[in-house]
Amino acid sequence: MLRFVVDTMGGDAGSSVCVSAIINFLKKNKDCEIIAVGKKEELTALEGLCKIVDARDVVPMEAGALEVMRMKNSSMMVALKLLKDEQLDGIISSGSTGGFLSASTITLKMIPGVKRAALVAPFPTKIKGKKVVILDIGANNENSPEELVQFATMGRLYAKGVYSIENPKSFLLSNGSETMKGSPEVKEAHKLLKENNFPNFLGNIEARDVLSGDADVVVTDGFSGNIFLKGAEGVASIMSKMMKSAFKKNLWTKLGYLHVRKGIKEMSETMDYKSTGGAMLLGINGVVVKAHGNSDAYSFECAINVAKKLAEADIVSKIREGLQSE
Amino acid sequence: MLRFVVDTMGGDAGSSVCVSAIINFLKKNKDCEIIAVGKKEELTALEGLCKIVDARDVVPMEAGALEVMRMKNSSMMVALKLLKDEQLDGIISSGSTGGFLSASTITLKMIPGVKRAALVAPFPTKIKGKKVVILDIGANNENSPEELVQFATMGRLYAKGVYSIENPKSFLLSNGSETMKGSPEVKEAHKLLKENNFPNFLGNIEARDVLSGDADVVVTDGFSGNIFLKGAEGVASIMSKMMKSAFKKNLWTKLGYLHVRKGIKEMSETMDYKSTGGAMLLGINGVVVKAHGNSDAYSFECAINVAKKLAEADIVSKIREGLQSE
Repeated sequence: MLRFVVDTMGGDAGSSVCVSAIINFLKKNKDCEIIAVGKKEELTALEGLCKIVDARDVVPMEAGALEVMRMKNSSMMVALKLLKDEQLDGIISSGSTGGFLSASTITLKMIPGVKRAALVAPFPTKIKGKKVVILDIGANNENSPEELVQFATMGRLYAKGVYSIENPKSFLLSNGSETMKGSPEVKEAHKLLKENNFPNFLGNIEARDVLSGDADVVVTDGFSGNIFLKGAEGVASIMSKMMKSAFKKNLWTKLGYLHVRKGIKEMSETMDYKSTGGAMLLGINGVVVKAHGNSDAYSFECAINVAKKLAEADIVSKIREGLQSE
Repeated sequence: MLRFVVDTMGGDAGSSVCVSAIINFLKKNKDCEIIAVGKKEELTALEGLCKIVDARDVVPMEAGALEVMRMKNSSMMVALKLLKDEQLDGIISSGSTGGFLSASTITLKMIPGVKRAALVAPFPTKIKGKKVVILDIGANNENSPEELVQFATMGRLYAKGVYSIENPKSFLLSNGSETMKGSPEVKEAHKLLKENNFPNFLGNIEARDVLSGDADVVVTDGFSGNIFLKGAEGVASIMSKMMKSAFKKNLWTKLGYLHVRKGIKEMSETMDYKSTGGAMLLGINGVVVKAHGNSDAYSFECAINVAKKLAEADIVSKIREGLQSE
């Protein structure tokens, strides 16, 4: 029986999104338990379905680590404390990224030997069903070459453990595929990975090729990774909107839509970043999943599924062991 | 009469692309002269239309600055020398980015006071016809806060000079819109721009909002800018391909396409990075336009048009004067 704790007060849309997500998740996953943390009067629909823990304070979206740590009665801190004290299998929150990641790191501590935790998410690719693991997509503002090398190790362990890829193809995100291209940090990390004979390290990859399906793991510093993630989201969202408006023009275009809707739906699902659900903070003692701040019920449910998948893969132990042996 | 020199040997597709582009450009621009540099036997179609200068060597795609400078008889170096000696109004090449930018900087020299040249390109946005100027998109591997501040000045002058925007809205690309977000360089640049009361500086912008149409100028270091540019290209290209295959499934979907093709075409044109044609190297003494390495005749013609627009706007003088007064 896997047990997860959900901070229901973090997202832009309020607790109702989390309530629907939990109901749907529990329907499909009879083997899991959820503890919902938040204002109990907003969680009445969950009574009888799961344990409810009352927490009155809500962490503001822009809250930093110190502010979060001080809010002992916030849903986020109460949930984190439960995760630690009751040794639960994972936590899911759509609250303030910076605050949640810092508070998680301080509360749960980093795995011995980890220099920096990294936010990791699987991205859709051109090849249907195939994902690429990208890290760090935003836990850090800058990273040293040594940290990038460690991200490569954690990314490899993630791809092996979660996607059962035997020998993941790993790349460094850079401004050119040639060996000598890159920021000073990327150039140095490239050198270190080559010197260490990092398994299946295939060199630099340009941003335009990240989603081609060739790479299993793409390593980047948190600043550039965040720009890649949000830039991709932005373009995908603009193009989807344009397409929808093309179909809404008149009766004929609406009829046209009937003929292609299956193909369009497939495309949307492939490129839908919401279906990846959440990003995990890798390198700390626990499964910590950050859902999008603007999650709807579907994407929040996907985030709970991410936590389940990671707990089943026992990703934390795998990283602990992997870092000792590599 | 504006006079431009074209390096016809640089692109992946060979000189024929440049030849077609020059023919089309000259048809529409009777007030312009072109000097075509390359293997003369490949440029016979241009005889009588424009001046042809024979140059036998081709700069390899991966050539660096020193290698290019040594290839005195290459089409790229001959074209650059012509630009300088005959005081032409601009140069267009689709050759090796690194080599072309470095050789241009060494040959033409930087405008006094400029710390680093920056590659700038207008991007399409969600709002039809509206462009956003982004720099640096790849001339540098890293940039100091002071260089970022100067990019803001050059970007502002570009938006004013080329797009006639009176008081451009300028932003810094960052991993969050809040003031305290960013890499160490971005945080410091933010502080400097605020201290200098940089005109209409509106703070940080996230990658997902860059193409929303709100910003006129977005400032970034060359490494992150390149990742944004190529990431956006990659996602746009994947989504276009998926859409095309959705329409090709069967007779019914093909019929459906007839009803929406106008809308789809509008969308493709808005998001087509080829139609922006080329990127300009800003900060040196001359109009230097880098066309995509994989340009087709249409996009290479667009690149010549970019050079024309920039020469007409007298962008180099504007930057020279602007940097003295700001």
